[in-house]
Amino acid sequence: MNLSIAYLGPQGTYSEFAASTYARWLQQHHQTDTARQAYPSIAQVLRAVAQAEVDICVVPVENSIGGGVTTTLDMLWELDMLQIQRALTLPIEHAFLSQADRLQVVSTVYSHPQALTQCQKWLETHLPEVTLIATNSTTEALQHLDADPTVGAISSAWAAQIYGLPVLAHPINDHSDNCTRFWVLSRESSQSGDYTSLAFSLPTNDAGALLKPLQHLALAKINMSRIESRPTKRSLGDYLFFIDIEAGLDSPHTRAALDAMGGCTETLKLFGSYTLLPMEEVLAQTSTPKYL
Amino acid sequence: MNLSIAYLGPQGTYSEFAASTYARWLQQHHQTDTARQAYPSIAQVLRAVAQAEVDICVVPVENSIGGGVTTTLDMLWELDMLQIQRALTLPIEHAFLSQADRLQVVSTVYSHPQALTQCQKWLETHLPEVTLIATNSTTEALQHLDADPTVGAISSAWAAQIYGLPVLAHPINDHSDNCTRFWVLSRESSQSGDYTSLAFSLPTNDAGALLKPLQHLALAKINMSRIESRPTKRSLGDYLFFIDIEAGLDSPHTRAALDAMGGCTETLKLFGSYTLLPMEEVLAQTSTPKYL
Repeated sequence: MNLSIAYLGPQGTYSEFAASTYARWLQQHHQTDTARQAYPSIAQVLRAVAQAEVDICVVPVENSIGGGVTTTLDMLWELDMLQIQRALTLPIEHAFLSQADRLQVVSTVYSHPQALTQCQKWLETHLPEVTLIATNSTTEALQHLDADPTVGAISSAWAAQIYGLPVLAHPINDHSDNCTRFWVLSRESSQSGDYTSLAFSLPTNDAGALLKPLQHLALAKINMSRIESRPTKRSLGDYLFFIDIEAGLDSPHTRAALDAMGGCTETLKLFGSYTLLPMEEVLAQTSTPKYL
Repeated sequence: MNLSIAYLGPQGTYSEFAASTYARWLQQHHQTDTARQAYPSIAQVLRAVAQAEVDICVVPVENSIGGGVTTTLDMLWELDMLQIQRALTLPIEHAFLSQADRLQVVSTVYSHPQALTQCQKWLETHLPEVTLIATNSTTEALQHLDADPTVGAISSAWAAQIYGLPVLAHPINDHSDNCTRFWVLSRESSQSGDYTSLAFSLPTNDAGALLKPLQHLALAKINMSRIESRPTKRSLGDYLFFIDIEAGLDSPHTRAALDAMGGCTETLKLFGSYTLLPMEEVLAQTSTPKYL
């Protein structure tokens, strides 16, 4: 039986590369066959898992330059039933795709807003006069390239290969250490791993209200590797806090710290424990690392 | 002499409404004349102040639904010289603008991604089949409306009035308590007010590393009204923390707490102390509150 994997499409996005990398790892280590299914937004990807249209999904969580992917965090809190099974971190190398014979001909550049931001200095240096147009994914605009040589797009060299499009420059990201962390999510409970992700709201907004739950982690010597605030959408100044800790839910020590946290939060949601996919090893086994 | 104010244009954006509201307040309370200057991106607005092209700017910082405006935070850290003079909070009421005689005719909707997200449920209910196209501001797409009755845009009723465009529905935001906080920034030092904003990076990533600076605030009984993390852009998992506290820099008590914080942070940057503009009073004095 095939395991179905939802991702943010269309074909050729970094999300699809992450999903296909995970699929290959599943095949190699668990002899599991998979089938990928593209959705037009991250919200629809996550709803597809929640509504059991697919088995699992691979979604971006944070980028080292752009920061947290807020839709993923907001939907995870709202759906309240998805659990993280794995995390994987992918190096991001943007490429400039166009049918133009040289950069100077290009007058319009399409890409996802995050990719445009991550190549801002390159664009200012090489294409200072172009019009930038935001798309829903890095590959959505590629269909326009065939018809018009004055149009360019920022995507991956992998997408260029899939769509048979010329790469005029690569890599073009301003920061070489650009990577995105993805989560593999499903409806199955996930209790063991090196990392646990959770989120909570606070009962009050007093001095030190956020400090109280965090102190229980520090007292238990549990490292918090990330904290991100998001609005509760109730009123301005009222927040949810998304936290990653370096500890697994199967440890009584972690459970005790989280129980104590529960006593000083309003709502505390656990999104599961998980390990990181060893990406260097996985990518070394593939034949296409250069297309990242 | 005119005080020049930069804002995210073009004319009719919520940023311009915030800038014009602040300009009116300056005129009424300080008899200061102002001239507004539109820029095509928030980054360019902030650089215009840093490079002394203009005197001050008004930029969005956070929305009660969408969360923090990451460009504003990232640029503030990078430019390292702008100071917050005021904060103002504006209620946001989105309107649906189109030359169509009824909603059913519309097949494409343009707006800023945040506005599209904030009206997602309304769009799913009333226009489930339309193509959504992201623009750089809520008013950028309005010029397309004249030519094509199948095109709609999400903007404010204020922008509809400025551009002489019909409003088909208003308000259409999914959450009625939708508001955006703006900051007024300049190059002048700002030391007094009820609120102070700051940001810091951490020297290590140990268990409790973030807790140490926050504990100095809690010990001093200073309330932290907001914390937001942003990537340092050095590597994934390395963050800056942007914090708002309910205390002014002119108090020795606050200074002592911040000095202690400085001892357990890597870099600590102060963005100034400020008060909130009394918006209810300001809006009550204007003739156009209904156009928000």
